[in-house]
This record gives sequence, C-alpha cells and structure tokens, in this order.
Amino acid sequence: MTVESGQAFAHAGDIPWQDLGGGVRRRILCWDDALMMVEVAFEAGAVGALHSHPHRQASLVRSGRFRLVIDGATRDLGPGDVYFVRPDLPHEALALEAGVLLDVFTPARQDFL
Amino acid sequence: MTVESGQAFAHAGDIPWQDLGGGVRRRILCWDDALMMVEVAFEAGAVGALHSHPHRQASLVRSGRFRLVIDGATRDLGPGDVYFVRPDLPHEALALEAGVLLDVFTPARQDFL
Repeated sequence: MTVESGQAFAHAGDIPWQDLGGGVRRRILCWDDALMMVEVAFEAGAVGALHSHPHRQASLVRSGRFRLVIDGATRDLGPGDVYFVRPDLPHEALALEAGVLLDVFTPARQDFL
Repeated sequence: MTVESGQAFAHAGDIPWQDLGGGVRRRILCWDDALMMVEVAFEAGAVGALHSHPHRQASLVRSGRFRLVIDGATRDLGPGDVYFVRPDLPHEALALEAGVLLDVFTPARQDFL
C-alpha cells in the first residue's frame, strides 16, 4: 500500500499490485477515509466470490467481460459498463474473459489497508 | 439523466451525454445520494476551469492526456493515472489531447442532477 491517504496524484505505473490468489490481483489507486478507488485484475475464469459489505460500491469495467450478480440479478458487462452495489447487498463477479474492474467505495475499505 | 438512484447495472452505450459547451460533455454513470460516478469527455484544449466543492473527488484518466492543477500543484497525467481532490481544494483540468476522465464524488453532486 504505497499511496498515502489524500495523496493528490498517482501514476498507474508506480502503484504495485497485490496478488490475492485465484487469478485475482488488486491495487489501491487513491483513497481517504471516506472514498477509495481500487483496481482489481482478473484472469479468465477468476471469481470475486459472493460477498457483501456495508460500504456503497460503484464499479466500472475497464477491460474484459464480466458476469455480475447483484442481489440475485445477473448481467454480463463489457468495457465502459458500470454497476452499483447498495450497502449490504450480496454480489459476485465472474471474469468471462481476463479483465480489470475499477471499484470505488464509500467509506474506504479499511480491510484493504 | 436516465440512470436512476441506486440502479444496479448500466451499459455505457445506453447512457446519453450532456453537452456542457466549450468542448466538454458529461454523463452520469451511476449514483445514489452518497456516491456518484461520472464520465467527462474533453476535446483537445478544453478546460475544466478552476473550481472547488465540498465533495471529495477521486478521478481516473480513461483516455487522453490531461494537465491537472490541485491546490497549486501541477501534474500531467495519462491513461490509468489518478488524482484525488480533498474537500474544498481548488482544482482544474486542461485536456492536452482529447480524452475522457472518470470522476467519482462523495456525496453525490446534486448540482449535476
């Protein structure tokens, strides 16, 4: 975690990835206690297993193709498409192709720090 | 503004742009009162003039090249780079090339609705 809270600028090439296993890597792009922007890279077939959290989440598909399930509703999304997860809704993501999600949370995911 | 508050999914191709003039277009991708994700497209040379707001902002350069000034500090950013604007800090963006910024706010920019 090399990006400081409230840091004004960050170049993508300077931010290291954390390997989460199972074909998933994550890095924190910028954040403070109230807002956090994160990138998550998936190999084809990798899964963000069903989970929920009290944080609101807005996400954008940066690349690849994903099958999202939010509170039981399923949708396949591609580059530029977005999804929004209200607090405590169960959701999961399956990478139909290798790709990258941009996840934004309010408040910050302190569990990622 | 065709995306409802808390709407779970949106396909980028379904969301219309709003022309703000001066070579700048904007569209709201997803939002609720606490979190809003917005895309802003700039023609080369277009400017998001110096301004400030009490909302926290996290932004990612989706494409193009931008000169950012945040609270007097200047940085040129390209695709994948990010910047973070703490509440009430003055900031501006100049498009060195045509490009698109992804801006995220907490709370939502009610003035965009």
